[in-house]
Amino acid sequence: MSAISLLTPKGFRAAGVRSGIKIKRGALDVGVLLCERPATAAAVFTTNKVAAAPVILGRKIICRGRLRAVVVNSGNANACTGKRGLRDAKRMAELCARSLGISADEVLVASTGIIGRPLPMKKIKSGIEAACEKASASAKSALDFSRAIMTTDTRKKAAGRRFAIGKKMVTIAGVAKGAGMIAPNMATMLAFLTTDADITKKALQEALRTAVENSFNAITIDGHTSTNDTAAIMASGMAGNSRITSGTGSAAKFTKMLTAVCSDLAYRIVADAEGGTKVVEVLVSGAASRADARSIARAIADSPLVKCAFYGKDPNWGRIVSAAGYCGARMNPLRTQLTIGGITVFKNGVPARADAKKLSNVMAKHDIAVHLKLGLGKAEYRCLTCDLSHQYVTINADYHT
Amino acid sequence: MSAISLLTPKGFRAAGVRSGIKIKRGALDVGVLLCERPATAAAVFTTNKVAAAPVILGRKIICRGRLRAVVVNSGNANACTGKRGLRDAKRMAELCARSLGISADEVLVASTGIIGRPLPMKKIKSGIEAACEKASASAKSALDFSRAIMTTDTRKKAAGRRFAIGKKMVTIAGVAKGAGMIAPNMATMLAFLTTDADITKKALQEALRTAVENSFNAITIDGHTSTNDTAAIMASGMAGNSRITSGTGSAAKFTKMLTAVCSDLAYRIVADAEGGTKVVEVLVSGAASRADARSIARAIADSPLVKCAFYGKDPNWGRIVSAAGYCGARMNPLRTQLTIGGITVFKNGVPARADAKKLSNVMAKHDIAVHLKLGLGKAEYRCLTCDLSHQYVTINADYHT
Repeated sequence: MSAISLLTPKGFRAAGVRSGIKIKRGALDVGVLLCERPATAAAVFTTNKVAAAPVILGRKIICRGRLRAVVVNSGNANACTGKRGLRDAKRMAELCARSLGISADEVLVASTGIIGRPLPMKKIKSGIEAACEKASASAKSALDFSRAIMTTDTRKKAAGRRFAIGKKMVTIAGVAKGAGMIAPNMATMLAFLTTDADITKKALQEALRTAVENSFNAITIDGHTSTNDTAAIMASGMAGNSRITSGTGSAAKFTKMLTAVCSDLAYRIVADAEGGTKVVEVLVSGAASRADARSIARAIADSPLVKCAFYGKDPNWGRIVSAAGYCGARMNPLRTQLTIGGITVFKNGVPARADAKKLSNVMAKHDIAVHLKLGLGKAEYRCLTCDLSHQYVTINADYHT
Repeated sequence: MSAISLLTPKGFRAAGVRSGIKIKRGALDVGVLLCERPATAAAVFTTNKVAAAPVILGRKIICRGRLRAVVVNSGNANACTGKRGLRDAKRMAELCARSLGISADEVLVASTGIIGRPLPMKKIKSGIEAACEKASASAKSALDFSRAIMTTDTRKKAAGRRFAIGKKMVTIAGVAKGAGMIAPNMATMLAFLTTDADITKKALQEALRTAVENSFNAITIDGHTSTNDTAAIMASGMAGNSRITSGTGSAAKFTKMLTAVCSDLAYRIVADAEGGTKVVEVLVSGAASRADARSIARAIADSPLVKCAFYGKDPNWGRIVSAAGYCGARMNPLRTQLTIGGITVFKNGVPARADAKKLSNVMAKHDIAVHLKLGLGKAEYRCLTCDLSHQYVTINADYHT
């Protein structure tokens, strides 16, 4: 799996260069990912009503379901930048298109970084031109691309899967950047995926929507949805498989594999959350509805009290059960069971007698599973969160705009 | 105002004693507040589905709208304690009733403290008996009562108003305990109010509901609603005013004054939040509906990123505007204006040029007003929050169950 790079699927090239947007010496900040032929494409964007300029543009571009390239800059989010921001985002697409000899409406633009400041277009222009010129199909260039989209991420995040569709092998690969907060703002989640599968626009859209719902949309660092979140996939169709169409077994397999890739990336985003020291999986089952399960899981996953308890290695069942109780979803404490790392800590409305030593071992781990069984129905929801540390406060308080 | 104590309204007596539930030497932990005659009464309770035993009992008791006494213990919340907990809560009412020679269904019980552990009933019994015996109408006993309901509050919280109904002077007074997190659990908000107004059950219920909605329900420390939250008022009717009935001008005046008392107490709860260093007022106006205004105000007030920014004295408009954008309520950044301490920092979708020096002065203050104007309608919502500090993480992570 680790051997699969963004450029393992046939037909893709990439590059990452330094244009000088980021102050840090040597930091890459402009990336280009392109497909040698018109790719079938899909993308999903932030639901934040304060959407950044590239997101506003991207929503239009993606309607056609065709892309040749993705151009990304880090260090500046081009958000809250008004009309000028929209012009700049369009200009990024045009610059990329001109350098590659394609059309601007085949280019998806993404930005991440500081908000409220205009893009330094001179630097961006030279960066895009350099990246387009440099784009190659080498592992090195895939690495450079993944570095160019990073902000305060401490490590690159890549994942991939290889599997058969009929008798042909198909590859899906992806990179992401995550929950590093960007001065003066919030985390932006960006994910770019490539595949050589031959797949219809409709099947690809459906697969991406399902995969994102169960991966990137099921993680929380601090409940903030950024202005710039974007997940996009390009399919070159060069694997030679018989075309995957919506509602078939091969579509289900593709969706499953895409979900696996996105889930790997989502896990890595949570594991690299600013100030985070642990990854906590919250599973709520036995709910009366999926909406209830989701509300409860999110209330637990977003609770500062719960997150502080995990940081302090404290198996604090009271905070978890009470978070479930206050979110408005149906639950009955008398039917509720809570396990932490497989150890029952609460059952039938009262605390269970758990082995303190075993519980302490569970709480010392990096990965901790919380499972709340509601006993009301069959719906469930799973999400990932991190803990809330002193370091989180330091990072997010001590920076001054 | 500061001269008004819980016992200033005619007809009340109180006491606070040490029963030994709390380990800390000398700490008071059982309080009794009683009315010399049957008081008209109203109460509101937590909406958490994991309600503590005294809350389950209290919801039944309050239906009659009559109380003679309130009995409270701190140090143990009697929550998540199953059938035994309910028996213990009833027993507390019975013990209080027997000592005072009244009926158990005239006694409201409240508890706050650690959850998931049975009440130490022997200590509680002697505490209740001692408190009932000691109950007097002196200022000292009002102070003891307010100390007996505290947990990790660093100071007592009292407020009052004196005003005319017709030609008679009426007093409303109250005490509260707040956002000290109790090991191993969450904050509990308790408020007990007294008045000598002559008022009908219906008018009193309506007044309390309105007052709580605009005070205790409009504050947030960390978004957690406790299992034990209770606000109760007893009216002795001894002021001699002509009876206040629902829907009249005197009811409106009473409601306004009760809201003022509750708002004072709510402010003090936020100001004494664990780890909090600032009180931030979030006002959202110009919303398309009150529900939208409330969603946005709560999203801002509960955002860890926003709260960290205030701790760091950082006028981070991006976090505030983006929190407004992700909560699902209607907003349009192009119509949105944000002021911090009266200084415009965001307008028409882009940052405003604010005077950095003035802004820095505003951010250095203890009380900061954030006002988001949406420009969509006429609805508004106001709430109070605190900042998120290293100390909050320390308090809530470093404690071990």
